[in-house]
Amino acid sequence: MKAACLAGIEKVTILERPAPEPGPGEVLVRVRTVGICGSDVHYFKSGRIGDQVIIPPFTIGHEAAGEVAKLGTGVTGLEAGQPVAIEPAIACGQCEVCQRGRPNLCAGVRFLGTPPIEGAYREYLVMPAANLFPLPKGLSLEEGALAEPLAVGLYAVNRARISPGETVAVFGCGPIGLSLILAARLAGAVVLAAEPLPARRAFALGIGADRVFDPQQTDPVAEIMKETGGRGVDAAFEAAGQPTALRQAIETAALGGRVVMVGIPAEDDWQIPSHLARRKELDLLNIRRSAFCAEKIIRLMESGRLKAAGLVTHRFRLEELARGLKLVAGYGDGVIKAVIEI
Amino acid sequence: MKAACLAGIEKVTILERPAPEPGPGEVLVRVRTVGICGSDVHYFKSGRIGDQVIIPPFTIGHEAAGEVAKLGTGVTGLEAGQPVAIEPAIACGQCEVCQRGRPNLCAGVRFLGTPPIEGAYREYLVMPAANLFPLPKGLSLEEGALAEPLAVGLYAVNRARISPGETVAVFGCGPIGLSLILAARLAGAVVLAAEPLPARRAFALGIGADRVFDPQQTDPVAEIMKETGGRGVDAAFEAAGQPTALRQAIETAALGGRVVMVGIPAEDDWQIPSHLARRKELDLLNIRRSAFCAEKIIRLMESGRLKAAGLVTHRFRLEELARGLKLVAGYGDGVIKAVIEI
Amino acid sequence: MKAACLAGIEKVTILERPAPEPGPGEVLVRVRTVGICGSDVHYFKSGRIGDQVIIPPFTIGHEAAGEVAKLGTGVTGLEAGQPVAIEPAIACGQCEVCQRGRPNLCAGVRFLGTPPIEGAYREYLVMPAANLFPLPKGLSLEEGALAEPLAVGLYAVNRARISPGETVAVFGCGPIGLSLILAARLAGAVVLAAEPLPARRAFALGIGADRVFDPQQTDPVAEIMKETGGRGVDAAFEAAGQPTALRQAIETAALGGRVVMVGIPAEDDWQIPSHLARRKELDLLNIRRSAFCAEKIIRLMESGRLKAAGLVTHRFRLEELARGLKLVAGYGDGVIKAVIEI
Amino acid sequence: MKAACLAGIEKVTILERPAPEPGPGEVLVRVRTVGICGSDVHYFKSGRIGDQVIIPPFTIGHEAAGEVAKLGTGVTGLEAGQPVAIEPAIACGQCEVCQRGRPNLCAGVRFLGTPPIEGAYREYLVMPAANLFPLPKGLSLEEGALAEPLAVGLYAVNRARISPGETVAVFGCGPIGLSLILAARLAGAVVLAAEPLPARRAFALGIGADRVFDPQQTDPVAEIMKETGGRGVDAAFEAAGQPTALRQAIETAALGGRVVMVGIPAEDDWQIPSHLARRKELDLLNIRRSAFCAEKIIRLMESGRLKAAGLVTHRFRLEELARGLKLVAGYGDGVIKAVIEI
Repeated sequence: MKAACLAGIEKVTILERPAPEPGPGEVLVRVRTVGICGSDVHYFKSGRIGDQVIIPPFTIGHEAAGEVAKLGTGVTGLEAGQPVAIEPAIACGQCEVCQRGRPNLCAGVRFLGTPPIEGAYREYLVMPAANLFPLPKGLSLEEGALAEPLAVGLYAVNRARISPGETVAVFGCGPIGLSLILAARLAGAVVLAAEPLPARRAFALGIGADRVFDPQQTDPVAEIMKETGGRGVDAAFEAAGQPTALRQAIETAALGGRVVMVGIPAEDDWQIPSHLARRKELDLLNIRRSAFCAEKIIRLMESGRLKAAGLVTHRFRLEELARGLKLVAGYGDGVIKAVIEI
Repeated sequence: MKAACLAGIEKVTILERPAPEPGPGEVLVRVRTVGICGSDVHYFKSGRIGDQVIIPPFTIGHEAAGEVAKLGTGVTGLEAGQPVAIEPAIACGQCEVCQRGRPNLCAGVRFLGTPPIEGAYREYLVMPAANLFPLPKGLSLEEGALAEPLAVGLYAVNRARISPGETVAVFGCGPIGLSLILAARLAGAVVLAAEPLPARRAFALGIGADRVFDPQQTDPVAEIMKETGGRGVDAAFEAAGQPTALRQAIETAALGGRVVMVGIPAEDDWQIPSHLARRKELDLLNIRRSAFCAEKIIRLMESGRLKAAGLVTHRFRLEELARGLKLVAGYGDGVIKAVIEI
Repeated sequence: MKAACLAGIEKVTILERPAPEPGPGEVLVRVRTVGICGSDVHYFKSGRIGDQVIIPPFTIGHEAAGEVAKLGTGVTGLEAGQPVAIEPAIACGQCEVCQRGRPNLCAGVRFLGTPPIEGAYREYLVMPAANLFPLPKGLSLEEGALAEPLAVGLYAVNRARISPGETVAVFGCGPIGLSLILAARLAGAVVLAAEPLPARRAFALGIGADRVFDPQQTDPVAEIMKETGGRGVDAAFEAAGQPTALRQAIETAALGGRVVMVGIPAEDDWQIPSHLARRKELDLLNIRRSAFCAEKIIRLMESGRLKAAGLVTHRFRLEELARGLKLVAGYGDGVIKAVIEI
Repeated sequence: MKAACLAGIEKVTILERPAPEPGPGEVLVRVRTVGICGSDVHYFKSGRIGDQVIIPPFTIGHEAAGEVAKLGTGVTGLEAGQPVAIEPAIACGQCEVCQRGRPNLCAGVRFLGTPPIEGAYREYLVMPAANLFPLPKGLSLEEGALAEPLAVGLYAVNRARISPGETVAVFGCGPIGLSLILAARLAGAVVLAAEPLPARRAFALGIGADRVFDPQQTDPVAEIMKETGGRGVDAAFEAAGQPTALRQAIETAALGGRVVMVGIPAEDDWQIPSHLARRKELDLLNIRRSAFCAEKIIRLMESGRLKAAGLVTHRFRLEELARGLKLVAGYGDGVIKAVIEI
């Protein structure tokens, strides 16, 4: 089979590799669609994320959907040809957090496309059957590949316990910020957002944000306070990974509000305005990936409540992976979500 | 001013009464629209609800909207002519539950139209300024009068912590059941419902229920279990006040699910299938009126997220109150919500 | 090995059986101490609990501690001779509730001493290694055997979110009621209780209940309301399985309080005073067994915070199982907890 | 009456002032005991806390107890001579957070001893009747004066939802850290602590901490991780107001744990290790003062569950206020809590 591998900083090569074989309880999947995530770009540009270092050649990619190709022994409820979305995290299932229902915190997790687990930019991969969600009729493979990034937004919104009629702010309208807007709208919230890129602001409005501010033209804190009559928002989501965005989230949160830290931090330390956070008695909630939300995303897309297909703005072939990564890295051509079609 | 008073069992007379005067912090309201609630019908037919007994002549009615007529001293932020929805509960503000943020449980509450507090079926009434919610441009007085019954549904859905992608069941599609369906849809849930009256089933489907079953033609428990693949629903709402509906709610709740008791019980004791509730480890949550939700309902209607105007199917003049009460009592003419226009 | 088996209604025989062999991940345990639980008595007297029917000869018993006898392949962290408490529930680990951290609701659970899984009244049994909790130095095997019943009280108290300075009521002071009193005291609560048997009342006071009322001499509802200045308790626990006790729990719960249903119901339906539960907006929380609490009980006993050894009032040999069951069935001789020593 | 007033930086003078008169609903209190709080020291040394600036002469002090001297009109349930603890915060009661049960966040709060509200270092003061908690028989005025600082610990422990058998870490064992240890022990937790001052370490052990580490001799993070078998603690409390302590709290929190920020931050910005907080998906909970806990503290002291009298290590007369403030400022003579006796 063909696999697109990182061969060095900003280098991708297509290698021929033996297709894997599914073991007991596992399934061989013919990969069809894989989204490009910000973390893929990070690996592409710097060869590492924190202490997770890539030893080339290595295949990344984890936002994947495909078709069942072959069942390992003991697998039931799936059949060859069936379209499936792939949950990329294989938690250990045995540790304390796994047993308590928080597998996204599992220290022993194996995660598709994170060293040393080879990722999805290849023709075939093997996953445990429990990591595959059958796509109902009417959902496309692209929608399947979106399940994972959309699940992050839903997970964060659920963790913040958003209820209908509450007002939220979202700082940053990249794919994760947009997934937060979609989920917050689904939860009945009024959504105010901030984003410097015009294409993303337009997209945010299109999927349901009530107002979107350009932080380079106006002060989003002042605007949000004005919109809320000086009260601030029930929950403010940091979705840019930027210290400024986190500070704005804290400044716009109402007394007793929640601040949700969803973005991957660009710096080693967050700076938190200590007196303000204390006087408001804020809850600062960290988010790591998601849990149990991909299936809900699929059900929400199936029922028509969640319309997400438009998020995919660019499509590339496996051989064009480097081009796709560069496009996403440079925020070029109004890109929201680019996918690799295999 | 004119006031429609209960003069005995199933008797209404119009009496001429002096218009009240607003004291400090109070507001005189010119009443315009008052919904007919099931509890009004109860008083009309039996002269009492539990140990709350009416001594005629007495004016009932509490789902009200109108226009500010005159401000008492010290009232700011309101002006004559302004349309307002009326929060009918005046909690004491001093007791433990009031201070802890649960004023709907206040033992010292004074409630519009509940003895000894005269209600809203009259031309003028006086309320504390804090009980008036200004209606934003574009909202009608009918929508204002709906704020209170709709708030009950939102409050119950919030108390059950419904999140997007969850599935709920609603047993009974009268005005309260419909308010639950609206709120559950706002919160992103898939909604299955049961209701014997065809007009209400049609209405429930029209406002967003995914499926509505007729319990006289089919077994709603079996249908809901089938719809959910045998799992049951995350939360089941009793909205009929009927023992059968509560039993069905318990039977359709998933393992670890929530059962929410919203209907006013028709009998003194609920019968709970004890072993089933225990094996599923259900949370059985009682609901009493609502708190802090009317303002959210108004905001949700203003933003277009909540479309509720269609709930009003019948309109009567003050002089026709008895006709209206009889219509609602008999579930006649496909009535959903009838209102008195004054 | 010897196994004490139910041979019919109120009949026990000692049979010679082959000792089981531990498979991969399993451990052979030399059973030493097994508590007699109310459910054991139930099987002894009627041969069934609900639809769980015993086909004799069958061994019951699930409150067990012993010593590691032999390790199956792949087991680490345990060694022969080590004293262990036994968690009797083997949840499937794969279903939705298992994955979400509520394994006590697992529909596929296998439970020691519940048909068709043979129980602990025998010399040897095999359990998965994950079901064994090593007993720290200083803890006796009797304390180990108490871990499971004590875990139920802790679990219920945690589910009710008891915090220091709150007041709770416990209706029924059998072993489960006492475990609730111990856990509520650990959580810092003031504890009021009701129990008709004098020996149990004395015991409840001895382990920390602030007041214990005799429901045959006085009205516990009136007494508890008086003790709380008419306010009622933050949480009321039903621990008798009796409709009267549940009613009293509902009557003594404060506005907005929690009622926790811990006892195994003696009847098929609970009768709930509907208007009272609604006016107070009570949360009625069912309890099924426990989850993740046995380890905490062991740590609490180790640290000296929880002194539970005195709960064991009677000890029998395996051959005396029938005598022990009859003693517990008849509440004889001031029995609190009887254990079988093997 | 005599009042001890700040007359400049590190200057106190005793002035003769007219005793206030209680208005309707208010009570004149003869002040007897007032604790010295870290915030008093802050005002004494720098004349301000953030943007709250003292204009001398001004009386500070807010941890107060005394005796009822005179009742304003309409006050019931209190009588002259009655000993009372004083709740120092007068929330507005009308704003959103007050109505939702979080009066400690009230933006319009008036707080004893915070400009412009004169404090308690004087012979008489006037408070609303609702701010006075009668001291039950057997409780001293010193215990009454401790109610407020102890309430902060209880409030923070409740907000962190500590349950029996959990393990917590407390960084800093000043009066607030000690109140956290007391409350965490009441809630059934195992308590590990860190504190550089030997007298405070000894005190912490004396009131129930299981282990207390000296951060100048050992690495408390390494010690706490060792004590917990590498798992970390369920909740870590920052009670020093120091960036290092907050970092250690984040480093010792278990996966999915809670970090509670109780100390008044010494610097304008907290530095949060961003990747660590995210990978563990921590909840960072800010704490501002307390709500509804002083009454519980009094009840817990009355029932003997909470023994706090020993916290008072030094007593001064009103004329010695400056000496007391200097002692506390310099952590001299093993001081834990110093009080002024009037």
